[in-house]
Amino acid sequence: MKINRYEDISQIDREAKKDYIDRHSAFVYCDTNASKGEKFKVKVKVGDQYMHPDDPDHYIAWVQLWSGEKMLAQANFSEGTLGSSPGNVEVDFFVVPQKNLKLIAHAFCTKHGLWQSEEVVVKVSE
Amino acid sequence: MKINRYEDISQIDREAKKDYIDRHSAFVYCDTNASKGEKFKVKVKVGDQYMHPDDPDHYIAWVQLWSGEKMLAQANFSEGTLGSSPGNVEVDFFVVPQKNLKLIAHAFCTKHGLWQSEEVVVKVSE
Amino acid sequence: MKINRYEDISQIDREAKKDYIDRHSAFVYCDTNASKGEKFKVKVKVGDQYMHPDDPDHYIAWVQLWSGEKMLAQANFSEGTLGSSPGNVEVDFFVVPQKNLKLIAHAFCTKHGLWQSEEVVVKVSE
Amino acid sequence: MKINRYEDISQIDREAKKDYIDRHSAFVYCDTNASKGEKFKVKVKVGDQYMHPDDPDHYIAWVQLWSGEKMLAQANFSEGTLGSSPGNVEVDFFVVPQKNLKLIAHAFCTKHGLWQSEEVVVKVSE
Repeated sequence: MKINRYEDISQIDREAKKDYIDRHSAFVYCDTNASKGEKFKVKVKVGDQYMHPDDPDHYIAWVQLWSGEKMLAQANFSEGTLGSSPGNVEVDFFVVPQKNLKLIAHAFCTKHGLWQSEEVVVKVSE
Repeated sequence: MKINRYEDISQIDREAKKDYIDRHSAFVYCDTNASKGEKFKVKVKVGDQYMHPDDPDHYIAWVQLWSGEKMLAQANFSEGTLGSSPGNVEVDFFVVPQKNLKLIAHAFCTKHGLWQSEEVVVKVSE
Repeated sequence: MKINRYEDISQIDREAKKDYIDRHSAFVYCDTNASKGEKFKVKVKVGDQYMHPDDPDHYIAWVQLWSGEKMLAQANFSEGTLGSSPGNVEVDFFVVPQKNLKLIAHAFCTKHGLWQSEEVVVKVSE
Repeated sequence: MKINRYEDISQIDREAKKDYIDRHSAFVYCDTNASKGEKFKVKVKVGDQYMHPDDPDHYIAWVQLWSGEKMLAQANFSEGTLGSSPGNVEVDFFVVPQKNLKLIAHAFCTKHGLWQSEEVVVKVSE
């Protein structure tokens, strides 16, 4: 099964391809340092400079947040959650790390399959 | 099937019952006014003054956010997401309302079943 | 939040109402006796004599199987899983009971909310 | 993120490794021919000759069924659904194909990550 990856869109010439890649790409936003045993916010967002449709037959149905081989959380969305207009799926998870995190997000588009973010390493210290 | 509801714990005498009710109760936090077609943050949190275990056989496995009869989003958690210590499940959803919202959250504890928040009404204007 | 219940449609006169109630109702099918510690099949089906649309903006998005206060399993479906034609969502779960079961299914229609089946009691013996 | 694949365990010498690979592997069972527009059963099972624990901190939390880039269904399980004894997660999905299927299952073990089945091609004819 194909898992699509982020590509640096500044290196892509064709506008339609830039848009396609960007609006499906999952991004993980969080601090790169965390305190062991304390609440830590991790934002997952789909698309950066471009927006994705929120049509009944074409929307981002879920995102998952992984640390290494462990799935921390999955958020499922209904079509229409973004107001049935183009937008960017976004969710903030709050996790409590005990050791370093290697965060990756997956996003599933009902038409264009599975997309994997780049990895974000979080150093966790006492 | 029993759906448990929040009770005002200041009216409850017994400490163990206060704790039990509070740590399982789902709460919806958001502004009471929103702009139509704009991103709007809704926090769902489980427990307020008391913390819930995050044990393998006893944790909050998922929360759902509803507006009236429509489910907007569901977040599933793994045991250990809260660091395997007592804490409060928390997730921020971002929705784009087109009309007034009547928000309710459900939370599922793997030992103590389904819990429903109080309703939060959000006025959505242009 | 309203949870809709099955009604005996033979007692309903209006055809449109019969259809509406039936096609949304969740049904649990299984034997009424099970052997402790052995695999036991439980079918959950939505609709009996009438079919539900499988349209992008109107389909059965998930079903849950509960025994008392414990959720045993949840199955999420994509629009189009039923071939984008009217049909009946159906899934067979396999559980291994240790004690008597009190099974209830929930089904969520993206347009018409949450529906709860009648309870099916399963006697579990050694 | 690592996605583990099935390996032919008859080619593996070490018993512990055979067991580890087999009990985590997802398998798709179905006919290789289907009729367009008709209900079609697809079984997803985890493990074949070996059983997987159903411990609170170590169980198969979900399986997904994909056809190419489209996710057809996801089933989430609670710890204890298999009676808290070693066993094989199993679920039957019913889909209605409109064109050939290229089925793949994913299974998530809470300790050992994501596992992908081999692909099963289903020819769909009128």
